[in-house]
Amino acid sequence: MAKGKARLSIVPLGGVGEIGKNMTLYWYGNDMLVVDAGLKFPEEDMLGIDIVIPDITFLVENRDKLRGIFLTHGHEDHIGGLPYILRELNVPVYGTRLTLGLVENKLREHGLLDTAKLIAIDGNSKVQAGVFDVSLFYVNHSIPDTAGFAIETPEGVVIHTGDFKFDQTPVDGRHAEIHKLAAYGQRGVLALVGDSTNAERPGYTPSELSVGEKINEIVGNAPGRVIMSTFASNIHRLQLMIRAAEKHGRKVAVVGRSMVNNIQTSLQLGYLEALPETIIDADDVNRVDPEKLVILSTGSQGEPMSALTRMARAAHRKIEIMPGDTVVLASSPIPGNEKYVSRTIDQLFRAGANVIYRGVHASGHGSQEELKWMLSLVKPKFFLPVHGEFRMQRTHANLAIDVGVDPDNIFITELGDVVEFENGRARLGGKVPAGAVMIDGLGVGDVGNIVLRDRKLLSQDGILVVVVTLSKSTGHILSGPDIISRGFVYVRESEALLEEANKLVESTLVKLVTDNVSEWSSLKTAVRDALGRFLYEQTRRRPMILPIIMEA
Amino acid sequence: MAKGKARLSIVPLGGVGEIGKNMTLYWYGNDMLVVDAGLKFPEEDMLGIDIVIPDITFLVENRDKLRGIFLTHGHEDHIGGLPYILRELNVPVYGTRLTLGLVENKLREHGLLDTAKLIAIDGNSKVQAGVFDVSLFYVNHSIPDTAGFAIETPEGVVIHTGDFKFDQTPVDGRHAEIHKLAAYGQRGVLALVGDSTNAERPGYTPSELSVGEKINEIVGNAPGRVIMSTFASNIHRLQLMIRAAEKHGRKVAVVGRSMVNNIQTSLQLGYLEALPETIIDADDVNRVDPEKLVILSTGSQGEPMSALTRMARAAHRKIEIMPGDTVVLASSPIPGNEKYVSRTIDQLFRAGANVIYRGVHASGHGSQEELKWMLSLVKPKFFLPVHGEFRMQRTHANLAIDVGVDPDNIFITELGDVVEFENGRARLGGKVPAGAVMIDGLGVGDVGNIVLRDRKLLSQDGILVVVVTLSKSTGHILSGPDIISRGFVYVRESEALLEEANKLVESTLVKLVTDNVSEWSSLKTAVRDALGRFLYEQTRRRPMILPIIMEA
Repeated sequence: MAKGKARLSIVPLGGVGEIGKNMTLYWYGNDMLVVDAGLKFPEEDMLGIDIVIPDITFLVENRDKLRGIFLTHGHEDHIGGLPYILRELNVPVYGTRLTLGLVENKLREHGLLDTAKLIAIDGNSKVQAGVFDVSLFYVNHSIPDTAGFAIETPEGVVIHTGDFKFDQTPVDGRHAEIHKLAAYGQRGVLALVGDSTNAERPGYTPSELSVGEKINEIVGNAPGRVIMSTFASNIHRLQLMIRAAEKHGRKVAVVGRSMVNNIQTSLQLGYLEALPETIIDADDVNRVDPEKLVILSTGSQGEPMSALTRMARAAHRKIEIMPGDTVVLASSPIPGNEKYVSRTIDQLFRAGANVIYRGVHASGHGSQEELKWMLSLVKPKFFLPVHGEFRMQRTHANLAIDVGVDPDNIFITELGDVVEFENGRARLGGKVPAGAVMIDGLGVGDVGNIVLRDRKLLSQDGILVVVVTLSKSTGHILSGPDIISRGFVYVRESEALLEEANKLVESTLVKLVTDNVSEWSSLKTAVRDALGRFLYEQTRRRPMILPIIMEA
Repeated sequence: MAKGKARLSIVPLGGVGEIGKNMTLYWYGNDMLVVDAGLKFPEEDMLGIDIVIPDITFLVENRDKLRGIFLTHGHEDHIGGLPYILRELNVPVYGTRLTLGLVENKLREHGLLDTAKLIAIDGNSKVQAGVFDVSLFYVNHSIPDTAGFAIETPEGVVIHTGDFKFDQTPVDGRHAEIHKLAAYGQRGVLALVGDSTNAERPGYTPSELSVGEKINEIVGNAPGRVIMSTFASNIHRLQLMIRAAEKHGRKVAVVGRSMVNNIQTSLQLGYLEALPETIIDADDVNRVDPEKLVILSTGSQGEPMSALTRMARAAHRKIEIMPGDTVVLASSPIPGNEKYVSRTIDQLFRAGANVIYRGVHASGHGSQEELKWMLSLVKPKFFLPVHGEFRMQRTHANLAIDVGVDPDNIFITELGDVVEFENGRARLGGKVPAGAVMIDGLGVGDVGNIVLRDRKLLSQDGILVVVVTLSKSTGHILSGPDIISRGFVYVRESEALLEEANKLVESTLVKLVTDNVSEWSSLKTAVRDALGRFLYEQTRRRPMILPIIMEA
């Protein structure tokens, strides 16, 4: 294992071989810094789990070396894990103004705001973090104030792209800083650590402005109210929606907690512009003529408790969908959410709305052509495709080879892989502890594989609890057996089955007791086996069987 | 409620407001016939459920009227429910040869083949089913021998499209019978009951032949083995794969039970053609040079136990993925399967294969232009868009309006809706029982909402079983309380929590017993409340709590 004495190590602790919980460790000697601290949403089989964060065991072991956490932008998969990490490692956190604005809200909720050290940086900043010098370059993305980092190390400069696209007609007028990238490329860049999200997509990602044109057209043609939903963090798109409303003489109301919060924060910090009379209170929507109203709402992903989903179910306190409404889902379903989105769309149609749910979206990530532009501008010697599942990393690597990067200088990393750079050479040096920590309620990491396996079993065929009380002296049955089932069968219809099961358990126990078998584990195993076999024969189902023996 | 004396009723019993379990009832007086008897795969929240079939309560109540079941084609969402229906209503089943061939396999597995009455029909058949005269017209689809039905009734002809596309260059040379449709249209059609699956898709669906061109190109360029996966029922595509193999001098091996079965059945019945030496045994794959081999495999949907998924996991007995392999997923993920497919693709890439998973597919359903062609050919007076979720039905209805159907003559039905036709007029007449029946293991319909709700609860935060034995005479605690948890927390790490929980339960019970509360329901409620509150405060989790009281 590399001791990191005179070499640079780059270690992905999250976001490779997966989408989500991004975190990359940069390490040189006694200095470490981390880029991003994201969360990931649980997989389907992570039953009952709320969120997943990176396993930071290695950082905690090396807490004395960690100089700071640098955040590229305010999306959950880049800042969502920060509260859990700051609880254990209270190091300075660097980020752009909007990013830190969103981080503050989060830390406040976790009661960590008072002790956190948040330092705002911008395009002119140069931060010394131990032996590292960190500057940022702005890029375009689906949230404003997104940056990548240029990390100067004794081995050379590393360009960490973060999430990016190149939008030549950016909504906020801030272009990606391609001249900075070109200058770094000219001087010589050691390594590029690059966003692979859209590596499978050929061509270019359209500008956000193209979405604005569609929004404008829809608002212009809508006969009645327009209810628009998008990601609450996509301030650019919300800006386009506000502009379209103003252009067509419509007021704007906002519903949905995250939408209200984000718009408030953005207006305060100057990332969003609206004329003073444009935004009205959601309570006043019924005082405005329908054709003079735009409602911005959460729910573009069909999230069950979001405003739009509740409107669709006729369960929203303030707003009811009416025929004549135009509802726009200005988004694309995140993989895994397709069914939730479809369900919401169906309900909106049933409620009589005209629903537009295709074609009003542009990705926040560059497609193949932009990825090749980044590689060409930066001209890195080494390349680490990150922020993606394996096939995206693999495809991104192939693009790099096409552009001219030496295949041997490309590392498709897994979590915990240590890529070491020394004297102009690079190699895979070993592994550090890395992985996932599951958070369920207040518990961090206390739900492991066994608990998940049990939840899975329980979810399939339920549970049968078999209770019996044995005499302490004789070992004979004093009470029971009683069988209680949950999630197995509908008891009223299955009385005969459960009665037979009960008799089977009784006879099994009586026989063993008669044979003088008193060891509880043997009794339980016998009951579990006999009952399991019987139930499977009768029902082809395998409920969990929990034999409980009491003594009295 | 209509008595159906002198009117025609069309009643969707499955396949509207949903994709899957298609079944449509045609009813005139004392005669009924049903088109299709499909199954549907369970939704995400139907934990532990295997399949879902239509609720046939109404058919069973009217069993003396049912003259036959007519099957449009052999896909599961059209024939998968048949065994469960035939168990209760053993009526004649009509279908094309391949369709019945696939039905036979199914009925054999259910032990129903001997008693079933299966009658093969073709393009020249005319079946009298009570007052109905039923003929078929061939259409194109992603399985051969697919037909729609022309149902002649005293009120007029109803055209039931079934699943269809119009493929102008069909792989098996059998064109859709557009001249029949034109003739019906000319004579006058009362109603069209039409497939809405792709109603949201503008334009045309490409011919299956275009997929053949891509397959040919891939096989021609592949440096080593080609492993191709598609739906095992897509015989047309399998034919294209076999042709491509033969054209490039390659042998074909087949893996995966449903693939082997379908290919065998199709070869026997003449729906698939292969030269005698083309297909080799899967056990012989290692005796053939890699560049002379094509392997056809199940698993295009990432199904966990399918051949390709097991190969990707290095868990297949006969075949191991090797660098140099070209793996083709000639399919598109069915909504809901996207994550399983992505996972398989990642694993295949990791194993060193070149994976092609986009662009080698054409839908089996017509897009908007084909749907408009069907409407124009048939020129129905009334229109029922079916086979789709609400937004697809709604969009299909809009297409019909564009083509010229009177909006008042269009019925977007829900399950059980009765559309009545009388003297050239139509209306929504009422509702009959309809819905879903869930099948879990051997149980049909015995898993209802309560069981599902319990499984859902169990899957989220697990269960705590609290057992105590009370004295029959004094009511005091003889043994316990013991707390056993499953799926809640990892016990070894949470001892303190569970100990405290235990003490809480004990003190709660002691207090009640001292106050002479002996009613078990009160005791259980008190334990459940106290424990639930405590656990939520400590963990923010809500496991199911099951208090059990024994007496001795």
